[in-house]
Amino acid sequence: MKIAILGGTGDIGEGLALRLAQKHQVLIGSREEAKAKEAADNYNKRLKERGLRDEIVGMSNQDAAKNGDVVILAVKFQFAIPTLQSVAEFLGGKIVVSPIVPMSKQKLCVYTPPAEGSAAKHICSVMPPDVRMVVAFQTLPAPRLADLDDPLDFDVIVCGDDEEAKKVVMGLVSDMDNLRPLDGGGLEEAKLIEPLTPLLINLAIKNKMRPLSIKFV
Amino acid sequence: MKIAILGGTGDIGEGLALRLAQKHQVLIGSREEAKAKEAADNYNKRLKERGLRDEIVGMSNQDAAKNGDVVILAVKFQFAIPTLQSVAEFLGGKIVVSPIVPMSKQKLCVYTPPAEGSAAKHICSVMPPDVRMVVAFQTLPAPRLADLDDPLDFDVIVCGDDEEAKKVVMGLVSDMDNLRPLDGGGLEEAKLIEPLTPLLINLAIKNKMRPLSIKFV
Ligand SMILES: C[C@H](OP(=O)(O)OC[C@@H](O)[C@@H](O)[C@@H](O)Cn1c2nc(=O)[nH]c(=O)c-2cc2ccc(O)cc21)C(=O)N[C@@H](CCC(=O)N[C@@H](CCC(=O)O)C(=O)O)C(=O)O
Ligand SMILES: C[C@H](OP(=O)(O)OC[C@@H](O)[C@@H](O)[C@@H](O)Cn1c2nc(=O)[nH]c(=O)c-2cc2ccc(O)cc21)C(=O)N[C@@H](CCC(=O)N[C@@H](CCC(=O)O)C(=O)O)C(=O)O
Ligand SMILES: NC(=O)c1ccc[n+]([C@@H]2O[C@H](COP(=O)([O-])OP(=O)(O)OC[C@H]3O[C@@H](n4cnc5c(N)ncnc54)[C@H](OP(=O)(O)O)[C@@H]3O)[C@@H](O)[C@H]2O)c1
Ligand SMILES: NC(=O)c1ccc[n+]([C@@H]2O[C@H](COP(=O)([O-])OP(=O)(O)OC[C@H]3O[C@@H](n4cnc5c(N)ncnc54)[C@H](OP(=O)(O)O)[C@@H]3O)[C@@H](O)[C@H]2O)c1
Repeated sequence: MKIAILGGTGDIGEGLALRLAQKHQVLIGSREEAKAKEAADNYNKRLKERGLRDEIVGMSNQDAAKNGDVVILAVKFQFAIPTLQSVAEFLGGKIVVSPIVPMSKQKLCVYTPPAEGSAAKHICSVMPPDVRMVVAFQTLPAPRLADLDDPLDFDVIVCGDDEEAKKVVMGLVSDMDNLRPLDGGGLEEAKLIEPLTPLLINLAIKNKMRPLSIKFV
Repeated sequence: MKIAILGGTGDIGEGLALRLAQKHQVLIGSREEAKAKEAADNYNKRLKERGLRDEIVGMSNQDAAKNGDVVILAVKFQFAIPTLQSVAEFLGGKIVVSPIVPMSKQKLCVYTPPAEGSAAKHICSVMPPDVRMVVAFQTLPAPRLADLDDPLDFDVIVCGDDEEAKKVVMGLVSDMDNLRPLDGGGLEEAKLIEPLTPLLINLAIKNKMRPLSIKFV
């Protein structure tokens, strides 16, 4: 499958690209084509050193959205809407995946959802109606995803209103090492998933632990 | 330590009593003294069958609150305030622990916090000012806690503004089988913990799994 990662030059984009590239064609998108190509070269270099598949390609966010079957929106909450608007014409019928968590950091992290109740619902409200929106990946710590020595024995919750699209994204989760996908319900339930991220960050701070993820047992 | 469990005749009270009784004196409270004594007898019988310490005692909620060093409020959200009011005169200076999660169940569970942002903050606002409030146990499934064959290899997040009281409750968590206590911050952070419960219940429903708890990895 062709997976476009908009803002794939950033922290979570890096980890997702490295891990998904083993089974999929990954397209790194950026506002600047040159930056995307540079990131793709860098990722491929690290994969090659380990004898892994190194076929990641870099391009503009527009080209990535145009060519991807699944489009991951790997930008901070405040850039989600402008980024989507910049590629809206290419999204018709596609699966768009949001890993986005609206948070602010004081001494600890605070979940700061918009009026719609979650980032997912907010983003959904500006998306072309035939886009199939799914949320996933919010609880994956970027530094561990990008560390190819980390076995990632985590659970990843996937939510969406389109059951078929949700299954596709659950399949992508299964394709990454030891990650186990769990069905979290519809987009309405995203408001129970997004606050896991500030919780994970706070637990790591308060208990002096490495970046944490989650297992349901 | 003497641990009073108000509403200890109910589901979570049962599991907490059975597990805490090995290292502490557990006082089961009820609105009806006879019901508390009957529950205590029943719990002791199950402990005795396994050769475990069986010294749980039953009494009114008032007597339990009066005699306990730590008071666990094991009633549903809508009964929290009346139950607290019925024992308020005995709580001065004590540690009160809330496992309470305000939820409603439609097809899936929905977190329904009060205006204060969490059950913890709501309850706190009616408590005598010298009560040391701590939240814990929200993510422990009662059926598994009460199944003494379940090894409970879970994490339990503990939040509170009084650091000493929080440490006491983290110690109680450590005293139960394989449970690992984690510091979740202050009472303000309870709003990140309480929604874990509807999430756990929904994940079990959607993925056809047994009642779930959580591990941070
Ligand atoms: C790399 C990591 O640094 P850190 O600053 O603690 O990283 C914590 C967070 O910033 C990082 O995890 C973010 O991705 C936070 N984060 C999110 N951050 C976001 O901004 N948005 C998110 O949606 C998000 C999700 C998320 C989910 C789970 C999770 O655990 C973290 C999440 C780390 O492991 N630090 C160790 C240092 C250990 C280490 O590897 N040090 C390096 C060099 C020093 C260094 O790089 O700090 C070394 O010596 O080799 C530490 O602080 O103790
Ligand atoms: C006992 C349990 O029944 P259940 O109805 O699924 O229980 C699920 C929930 O109602 C139960 O876990 C509640 O305590 C939900 N719950 C809370 N419920 C609340 O009301 N408030 C809470 O704050 C709360 C917290 C909570 C935290 C974690 C968690 O996982 C669950 C939590 C179960 O394991 N059911 C199995 C049946 C297996 C079984 O053991 N069956 C029995 C008999 C049949 C039966 O008892 O259903 C047998 O054959 O021996 C199933 O549905 O597949
Ligand atoms: N970090 C984590 O551990 C983690 C984990 C799970 C989920 N998430 C979520 O994933 C999303 C991305 O997080 P991140 O940490 O990867 O972010 P990041 O590294 O700070 O940024 C990602 C990319 O966003 C693009 N960007 C920056 N400013 C922009 C702007 N003004 N307009 C449009 N695009 C802009 C940049 O790409 P270009 O400059 O190449 O365009 C950047 O590389 C967030 O919503 C976060 O909540 C993060
Ligand atoms: N069930 C779980 O898995 C679980 C897990 C974690 C946390 N919790 C939380 O723990 C709390 C208790 O849950 P539970 O499932 O144990 O509840 P429960 O079994 O339904 O009720 C507990 C006790 O509350 C008392 N009670 C009932 N009606 C009352 C009323 N009108 N006024 C005062 N007390 C009343 C009863 O005791 P008496 O009749 O003896 O007075 C009853 O045994 C909840 O807030 C829940 O969110 C539950």
